[in-house]
This record gives sequence, structure tokens and C-alpha cells, in this order.
Amino acid sequence: MTAASACTVAVATPDARYDILIAAGLFAEPSAWAGLPASAQAVIVSNPTVNALYGDALAAAISRHHQNVSRVLLPDGEAHKTWDSLNLVFDHLLAQGCDRKTVLYALGGGVVGDMAGFAAATYMRGVPFVQVPTTLLAQVDSSVGGKTAINHPLGKNMIGAFHQPARVLCDLDTLDTLPPRELSAGLAEVIKYGPIADMAFFDWIEVHLDALLARDRAALARAVRRSCEIKAAVVGEDERESGLRAILNFGHTFGHAIEAGQGYGAWLHGEAVGCGMVLAADLSAELGLVPAEFVQRLARLVQRAGLPVRAPAMAPARWLELMGVDKKAEAGAIRFIVIESPGRAALRQVPDETVLRVIARHTETAGAAA
Amino acid sequence: MTAASACTVAVATPDARYDILIAAGLFAEPSAWAGLPASAQAVIVSNPTVNALYGDALAAAISRHHQNVSRVLLPDGEAHKTWDSLNLVFDHLLAQGCDRKTVLYALGGGVVGDMAGFAAATYMRGVPFVQVPTTLLAQVDSSVGGKTAINHPLGKNMIGAFHQPARVLCDLDTLDTLPPRELSAGLAEVIKYGPIADMAFFDWIEVHLDALLARDRAALARAVRRSCEIKAAVVGEDERESGLRAILNFGHTFGHAIEAGQGYGAWLHGEAVGCGMVLAADLSAELGLVPAEFVQRLARLVQRAGLPVRAPAMAPARWLELMGVDKKAEAGAIRFIVIESPGRAALRQVPDETVLRVIARHTETAGAAA
Repeated sequence: MTAASACTVAVATPDARYDILIAAGLFAEPSAWAGLPASAQAVIVSNPTVNALYGDALAAAISRHHQNVSRVLLPDGEAHKTWDSLNLVFDHLLAQGCDRKTVLYALGGGVVGDMAGFAAATYMRGVPFVQVPTTLLAQVDSSVGGKTAINHPLGKNMIGAFHQPARVLCDLDTLDTLPPRELSAGLAEVIKYGPIADMAFFDWIEVHLDALLARDRAALARAVRRSCEIKAAVVGEDERESGLRAILNFGHTFGHAIEAGQGYGAWLHGEAVGCGMVLAADLSAELGLVPAEFVQRLARLVQRAGLPVRAPAMAPARWLELMGVDKKAEAGAIRFIVIESPGRAALRQVPDETVLRVIARHTETAGAAA
Repeated sequence: MTAASACTVAVATPDARYDILIAAGLFAEPSAWAGLPASAQAVIVSNPTVNALYGDALAAAISRHHQNVSRVLLPDGEAHKTWDSLNLVFDHLLAQGCDRKTVLYALGGGVVGDMAGFAAATYMRGVPFVQVPTTLLAQVDSSVGGKTAINHPLGKNMIGAFHQPARVLCDLDTLDTLPPRELSAGLAEVIKYGPIADMAFFDWIEVHLDALLARDRAALARAVRRSCEIKAAVVGEDERESGLRAILNFGHTFGHAIEAGQGYGAWLHGEAVGCGMVLAADLSAELGLVPAEFVQRLARLVQRAGLPVRAPAMAPARWLELMGVDKKAEAGAIRFIVIESPGRAALRQVPDETVLRVIARHTETAGAAA
């Protein structure tokens, strides 16, 4: 391991304790894989692209812990986060005669992690799994905290489970092969941690954004570590999202509506979240919580990160409908994560007309009219 | 409530505490429904037959706790314990705009309970649910303990979750409308508790079997209560089936093979378990653990309960294959729940040839040859 950039973040929930390892060269470092659950069978869940890049390295890294390591490859993209894809995992597990000690390894981004995790949560009512995230978004967000899910035609992540991984291994080297658009999408979730929890980190991102975009190893290590620290602290206090954890969804109510409204995959999740954060920040300003300068500062950083800041044109009724079925909706009222003051987020119920006013101001066709 | 036959059994696991209420006339007893999770939306999951009998009574009983009570009806039978049926529940929940506080009520037998429970475990990563079992099998076994699942073409209950109900309400009156074959199937699981945990209860069943078959209210109350007490004690010690809980699967390894081999629904689950217990008892005798008289005594009671004691003809390789994918199989070795001594069960690894010898002795066509 590159000592300069190697670190461990511990996660502790009422249900589980596990480590997030963050370093370059993890696949080649036996100590990173020591102490994982032992089993005869292990299954790597990945997609064809990531498997071609890192499948053999992962198989080699875990070969001493399992007699039989097989792989199941799922079609890539949010549009495939479906029951049909999930069933490919179950078919494989049963065809291989996998028992309830079998360990699943999720090798890939958020889609693979969510599906492998949900498969692990429900195969024989639960088997252990290990997250090996290969995208920035998965390393800083989706692989940590135990949220697993698939989509339903009527809503994203509507069917899922909380199931904590046994370990999360973030090999920073894998970010070298990430397409630029995916790197930007991951930066949206990194930026998110600033407004909701740590404005000093936000300041740091502003200064180091070019280094992050250039994939500077030390900058990435720090961004992943600080993101994971914040997420681990939040998840440790509220594993099941009964309160605090909802702040991690800053920008996500708008973002989910964009993703669902445009068809899963048209916008990357991180792109929708990037744009959604700008809208959510402006909603906070509209409520008098933060100054307009804060919204502009966030929008500037989002844009510099290569992310869209204008929402796609959709009818107001469609926006409300798409946000109404979001999981943060309770009993018919839409609640938003807003910034109470820079660095602190909260859940607020907001009138529809306020929401629509903000959306209109940031929509591609209607933007100039606001 | 009929005071003479009303009682409560408490279940306490590391994850949850809840009560099993056992009485006649529960639907009409407001106190039985007090204190359940409150929510605007509630959804009754049932099948057309049971809904026609008790759907209105349940809707009336819970109407004071929820503004909107809707129903989703699933096709009946083990053959329909599939993803397609489960998705009917998700479609309904999303079409109704149900949020994560929505309470699901499982009204029916084991199939409805398993599917409603799994839907509750995974809808928006988990919503509360209440079990209202209307079959003897569900009242004494499947509704208690939080096991939920659907079947996969390659194995029964292969996809599921542990998700404890908020309460279990066993209205003994519902057993009046149970077809005789279903009553017998439920008695298989009642009888099961004797050999594995309580031979005094087994003695009592032998004496009161005719009263149970005649649906004598007091006899049923005692049978349901004692069964639930034993199950609650086992589940309280081992919620996730890491050890002790496996004893509840006595007869189930053979039983699952019969069910899967004959096609789900050809044999009722309880019928397969009844026959499976006779085989498992004989396996225990074959291993020198119990005398042959014990096997005969169990077989007699199973037969008196209206259950099959001869296994269907299947090729030995097919038996082994079907038992090999059972969830109790670990790393290629088939393990069986055997009776160590009457009233005490244990998990044992058994050589294939011993298993096949026992099967041959109890198979329809091959029985005389043994």
C-alpha cells in the first residue's frame, strides 16, 4: 500500500461493525483481504467492463479465502437495476449450489453494489458480502452504509434492504479507468458533504477541484476519506434513516425526479444529484435560510466539476408527481433536505408553489424567464 | 374474547419484541388491535378465498388506526409464492402512493404471510407488518419468527429476509372454515414440536387428536399456544438460524425434497413435513438414536392426523439433488435434523447411503422391498 494515501475508516451501527479501507494498490495487498468471512464458495458480482479491468485481480486477491470463486456479470447502467438482473445473481448462486455461508463480492459502481448487496441481503435470507467499489461515487457514497435496492418502474430504489457489508475496499487505482463523466458524477456526492456537514471540506474541495479532476492520488485519497468519515458518522447514528441519515439525501429529491422523469440512465445519478443540490440550495435560500451567494458558490463548484446545473424541462405536475413517490415523502407531504446554514442540513416540509418557483428558475427552457 | 381460550405468548429477539394473541373472536375485540403502529395507509394482503371470508372483518377491526385501508389479493397456493405475485404487492403499494410508514396486514395462510412479510421487509427497505394467520399451519408455525420468503424455480424459500411482525393475531374462529386437508397439514407442524422439544405435549396430542380434528376450541387453543410457546423460545434464542433454530426444520429436508420434486402445490407443505418427519425419525433410528417403536408411534400419529406417511417414488439421485440445494446444506454436505432422544433434536451430517436406505423403506412403490 502507498503509505501516504492508505487509511481506514471504521463504521459502527447497531447491527454491524466494519472497516472501509482506502488506498492505492489494494488488490495486490494481502493484508487488505485478511480476516474476511471464510467460505468454500465466493461469487464476484460485476459488469463486463469492470470485470475485464479488475475481475482477475480481485479473484486472485480472494483466492486464498475461498476454494471456488465464480463470477456473474450483470448488464451495466441504472436502467438494469431491476429484478431481472437481480435474478441472474440468484440463478447463478443456485446453479452453483451456493450455501448460506457463500460470500458475495460487489466489484463495480453503485448499480453493481446495490444489486449484489440486495442479492446478499435476500439469498437464503442473508449471506455476507464485501464491497469493492471501482467508481468514485460508489467509494464515497453508495458502498458505505448498507443501503441496497433495485428499482421499480414506478420509483427508484423502491425495493431493497439494509444489509451492511463485511468490509469496503476502495482501491484508488481503479479511478484511473473511470470515464470523465463518471468521475464528475462521483464528485457530486463528494461536494454534497460540504453543505450538509463540513464547510471546511467544501473550502478544501474548491481549492483542490482541479487536482481531483486530474485524478491526483493524494487529493482523491483525502476526498474519499473525508466523505467516508462523514457518511460513517451519520450512518453510525442512524442506520435505518429514521432521522439524521436523511440529510445524506440533500439534492436527491430533485435528483430522483430528474432521473425518473428522463428515464433511468439518461442522466447519471451523480449528475442529477449535482443539479438537484443547486435546486435544493436555492430552495433553502428561498426559505431565507442561506444567502443567494451560497447558492451561487455551490452552483459554481458543481459546474466546475463538470456537472449540469440546469434542470430538464418537465411539466410542474410531473415534477410533483415524481417527487411525491420519493421515499422521503410521508403521508402525502413532500419533505426536502434543506441547508439550515452552510454546513448543517435539516428536513423541512415545503409548499408546492415554492418548490415549483425554484424549479422554474433553474429549468433549461424556462431559466431566462425567472 | 372467550376468556377460557384467550392467551398471549411473547416473542423477544435481539431485533424485536412482539405478542402472539390467541383467542376466538379476535376480529371483534378492539383491545386486540390497540397499540399497533399507526399510519395513514394500511394494506391488507390476502387471497380471494380468505378475503371473502374475513377481509371485511379485518378492515373493520383496523379502520380506527388507518385512514385508508386497501387490499391486494394474490393467487393462492405455494406455486404462486413467486416474484410475479410479490410484484403485485409492490405495484399496489406504489400505485397507492404508500410511504414507509404504511402497515401491511397478512391475512391468510403461510403463502400470504411469507409474501406479505417479504414485501414488508423490502418495500422502501422495510415497513411494519402484522400477521393475521387464518390457517392452523400459519398460526402454529409460519406466522411466528419473522422468516419471510418467496420460492425460486431451483428451490423453495431461497429468496427472503428475516423481518419480525409487529404482532401476530390468531383468531381460532378462522379455523372453522379451513378445509380438512389444510387442518391436517397444520397438525403436522403441531406434532413436530413433540419430538423436538416436548414429549409431554406429544402425549397430550395423542390423547386429544380427535378433539383437534373435530376443531374443539379449547383443544385448538392449547395446541396453538403450546406450539407458539416452543417456537417463541427457540426463535428468541436464535433469530437468524445460526444453530438452535434449525431444529424447527425437523422433517423439512425430506419434506422440501418431496414438495419440490412433485411440483409445488401437489403436496401441501404440512403433508410433506408430516411424511418427512417419519423419514427423519427413521433416520434417527437408523443412527441408533431412538428405538423403532418411537418411529412407529410418530408414524401412527401422523397417519391419524390425516397425513401421508409414504414418500412419493423419485430416483435416488433426484432425492439427493433436491436435498442438496436445501438451505440446511452447507458446503456440499447434507445435514439433517435428527431426534437425539425423544423430545430433543440435533443437527447431524449423514452419509448419502444411509439416507437413501431410509427413503427406500418409506417410498410408495419400493416400500415392500425394504
